[in-house]
Amino acid sequence: MPRPTALSGFPEWLPGQRIAEQLVLDSLRASFELHGFAPVHTRAVEPLDQLLRKGETSKEVYVLRRLQADVEAGDAGLGLHFDLTVPFARYVLENAGRLRFPFRRYQIQSAWRGERPQEGRFREFLQADVDIVGSQELPFDHDVELPLVVLAALQALPIPPVLMRVNNRRLMQGFCAGIGLGDQEAALRAVDKLDKLGAAGVRAELSSVAGASEHQADALLTLAATRGDAAAVHAAVAAAGVESPLLRQGVTELVAVLDAAQTAAPGRLIADLSITRGLDYYTGTVYETHLVGHEALGSICSGGRYDNLASSGDATYPGVGLSIGVTRLLSRLFARDLLRASRPTPTCVLVAVTDEDSRPASLAVAGALRARGIPSEVSGSGAKFGRQIRAADRAGIPFVWFPGAGAGTDQVKDIRSGDQVDADPANWAPPAEDLHPRLVGTVD
Amino acid sequence: MPRPTALSGFPEWLPGQRIAEQLVLDSLRASFELHGFAPVHTRAVEPLDQLLRKGETSKEVYVLRRLQADVEAGDAGLGLHFDLTVPFARYVLENAGRLRFPFRRYQIQSAWRGERPQEGRFREFLQADVDIVGSQELPFDHDVELPLVVLAALQALPIPPVLMRVNNRRLMQGFCAGIGLGDQEAALRAVDKLDKLGAAGVRAELSSVAGASEHQADALLTLAATRGDAAAVHAAVAAAGVESPLLRQGVTELVAVLDAAQTAAPGRLIADLSITRGLDYYTGTVYETHLVGHEALGSICSGGRYDNLASSGDATYPGVGLSIGVTRLLSRLFARDLLRASRPTPTCVLVAVTDEDSRPASLAVAGALRARGIPSEVSGSGAKFGRQIRAADRAGIPFVWFPGAGAGTDQVKDIRSGDQVDADPANWAPPAEDLHPRLVGTVD
Repeated sequence: MPRPTALSGFPEWLPGQRIAEQLVLDSLRASFELHGFAPVHTRAVEPLDQLLRKGETSKEVYVLRRLQADVEAGDAGLGLHFDLTVPFARYVLENAGRLRFPFRRYQIQSAWRGERPQEGRFREFLQADVDIVGSQELPFDHDVELPLVVLAALQALPIPPVLMRVNNRRLMQGFCAGIGLGDQEAALRAVDKLDKLGAAGVRAELSSVAGASEHQADALLTLAATRGDAAAVHAAVAAAGVESPLLRQGVTELVAVLDAAQTAAPGRLIADLSITRGLDYYTGTVYETHLVGHEALGSICSGGRYDNLASSGDATYPGVGLSIGVTRLLSRLFARDLLRASRPTPTCVLVAVTDEDSRPASLAVAGALRARGIPSEVSGSGAKFGRQIRAADRAGIPFVWFPGAGAGTDQVKDIRSGDQVDADPANWAPPAEDLHPRLVGTVD
Repeated sequence: MPRPTALSGFPEWLPGQRIAEQLVLDSLRASFELHGFAPVHTRAVEPLDQLLRKGETSKEVYVLRRLQADVEAGDAGLGLHFDLTVPFARYVLENAGRLRFPFRRYQIQSAWRGERPQEGRFREFLQADVDIVGSQELPFDHDVELPLVVLAALQALPIPPVLMRVNNRRLMQGFCAGIGLGDQEAALRAVDKLDKLGAAGVRAELSSVAGASEHQADALLTLAATRGDAAAVHAAVAAAGVESPLLRQGVTELVAVLDAAQTAAPGRLIADLSITRGLDYYTGTVYETHLVGHEALGSICSGGRYDNLASSGDATYPGVGLSIGVTRLLSRLFARDLLRASRPTPTCVLVAVTDEDSRPASLAVAGALRARGIPSEVSGSGAKFGRQIRAADRAGIPFVWFPGAGAGTDQVKDIRSGDQVDADPANWAPPAEDLHPRLVGTVD
């Protein structure tokens, strides 16, 4: 066969990058579990009618068909999930009787979208989601707690700092109501496009789609330009002179998130009243997150409060969730060489082979090292030691072991320093930082 | 929406089961990395022509289509991979210049097959693969090494013992040549069906499809009935009085695997000359593995030597690989309650809330515990302590923390023993075995 080429939009990493990716996922998982989130893994497919409930995304769905499907094919209406929120809502409904609420879950899986690939946008990508879902009700406290969990998880990684921008749809809807703007959903969808269309474009859409007067559009655009802390939010609302109960609730909620973050994650979370999240299932707090210095990449972690996503009969499961775009984040960090594994192989020690007859001795050394938890492999060939050392060097393996090298005693060489010392596989150990690959971040 | 129901063939686990599955995957990964295998993760999709190279599986492939695909759709010819071997072969060809050979990789991912679901057979399932691939050549040593790596990985899990059955296609082909049977591929495919068709059925197929005489069928079926150690293999071949160079090479290779396992994994690996693996890309050693006492489940770990799977122009990449059917294995162990997590939540400590006003004190305790690596969550409500203790009990959380419970001093209760003691979040620690969920196997 001809040498295959990469498929656009379906990124794959070299082993060293995959090691780094796994270490990132390990770290996220440890952070989430430290906060009491349990893992869930859902199937990759959902019934198409489930996937298409969520408005504007129908064009992105990959539909499945069995190559030799018969007429009574049971899987005719299946598609690949395009996020982890829709499958999770379905999972909660399906298993509600066997979960405990509030249900704290994390989920790290691929999702698929048939979009045109571009920087930061892929057809297959890893997401790391955390959600807290209640049965019938979910205290607002969790809107405050969740961004702190995610910020702690992101700050535990050796990556550039992040800035989470927060808003509240109740605040925005209450403001629209206060200025007499009727079609609030359309107005918020227009504001959501500020990045893309600019103020003039949003003003036009507010007028044409949401039926806003010039005065209403002015007021909303002025509000949406607000950035900063709780004082800035209070000032912006006071300056507008607008009042409504929903607006007041929204301000109270937003300020609670801002105040908590000022202590727990100073400088990492601000109000940004232009954030509305286009998806209409969000009902309260909404979050977006940029990697500082990489704003053009788009949000690497978004989410919000949803009160009505999962319901069945009288049962409703309001929730709040955040989703980290792992592939978007890593593709940038790898491309800019900002994150890597300390070595591209798990192997700590390459055991050299003197000649093929003595291979069993080398295998025995590797076995003794592994029994003590030291990742080891035996050289593939009994070539000259110099060649075996160069092979380890190219592979990024830090130590080479020579059985019986020094008058019958084993020796081990650190091939970075060149130091070679007598060693016994029953008690030698590498420095702790060399035992396994580690994540290495470089200054941005 | 109505309460959704499970999709047949697409298993999903409850959080406690997913915790157990993750611990199994962690353990497999640690075993593989200890032996110097690097991780690879490939995209879920491959070009259809790649997926259909491998003969008999075309009916199982799920084909993708974008819901609103335009004519120039670039992803028209994509399907979900049905194993991890075909994607890995493609990955090796695509990245050959950037890998080091022999390339030792493991890969733990889902695969999809549109087969009719039945016990142990799923439409979406997790596989854990290990392969060693060489550039142009791969020493036979690796056929000996790989099953020992996988047996060590399986034996590190608290599951029933396994028995790996090994054969060698060179031995079988050499035997066919020695008895003058022309269509060796057809003959081996027939022998592969011994489990399904029985001796009479295979005899009929040997005659009708492979053109075997009664004498040839007798000889092959007698050979295929051989089970046991190296002595049994030698005896069976000698009794048949058949000779050929390929047969001799096959016997030598098979015996090398058997001898090595007798020392490294006594009682866990035997010869079984009925194993041929239907897939025609295997060229030498072949492996299948049963969970002892669960033979009807089918093989939970199969593979073999393939000399010609990946090649491009003059470059060939011979390999040897084994694949553990994680979902098949776990679905059985979960169904029979033979494996579980020690608790169904990562949370070690539930911090009680005395009343809503003192919630910040409870949050501070949880923060102090987490800072010391102890997974903690704060109670959702300030209900009576008795209710909060029962909630922890139902959730499987072993400890409940009461801020300021004993005359201003915090106390912590082990809700299994009922013991309650004074404690300080700055230095209290749970017993090591309670810090995180562990895998618990029960006697079969």
